[in-house]
Amino acid sequence: MRALLIVAHGSRRAVSNDEVRALCNAVAARDDGLYDNVTCAFLELAEPSIPAGLEALIKKGVRDITVVPYFLSAGRHVAEDIPAEVAKVAVPDGVHIHIAPYVGRSEAMADLLLEQGRSTA
Amino acid sequence: MRALLIVAHGSRRAVSNDEVRALCNAVAARDDGLYDNVTCAFLELAEPSIPAGLEALIKKGVRDITVVPYFLSAGRHVAEDIPAEVAKVAVPDGVHIHIAPYVGRSEAMADLLLEQGRSTA
Repeated sequence: MRALLIVAHGSRRAVSNDEVRALCNAVAARDDGLYDNVTCAFLELAEPSIPAGLEALIKKGVRDITVVPYFLSAGRHVAEDIPAEVAKVAVPDGVHIHIAPYVGRSEAMADLLLEQGRSTA
Repeated sequence: MRALLIVAHGSRRAVSNDEVRALCNAVAARDDGLYDNVTCAFLELAEPSIPAGLEALIKKGVRDITVVPYFLSAGRHVAEDIPAEVAKVAVPDGVHIHIAPYVGRSEAMADLLLEQGRSTA
């Protein structure tokens, strides 16, 4: 079993966290079967935490987890805090956790920005 | 003349601001001719400011400017601060400034996240 864990910063505004959860559902709906599970976790200020999110997936029997940082730039959160949270989890034998590049690094971001501009042009 | 102004938060880390400038260049390179100019501005902590970015475009003769907020969620920055910065600019007759939805709202974001996960899967 394979899972995608989308990690956002987390906000004091519940509506921002709900936005991430809705995005997560949209990702699950658009997945063409690569993942058995698409879920989200938060670095701070919202639940589940990154360790809790990872542990829930492991408990479900997921063996391969890709963590995608939903961040626009490579600050301390991406470089240090997310890896440190991931490292808190006791990973059973045969379970693999990968951290993907943060979304701001995506080559598709330039096209997304162009498209976003076009929507009001 | 038409321009796209990508507005990021701005960071104390110069490398983060440079990342936005590089993204801006990538957007310009991928544009298929809709825009005569693709540039960036920062809400705070980096230059140019939003009013300075807009005024420079207007001075160049741009008549139609689309502002794209490079933000993941609809917090106060997107809802209030960016429109307030845009409103500081004296807009000459015949010049139009539009504010596009922030990038986190993009329908393409779900696909971008899937692709980002796939890059390490």
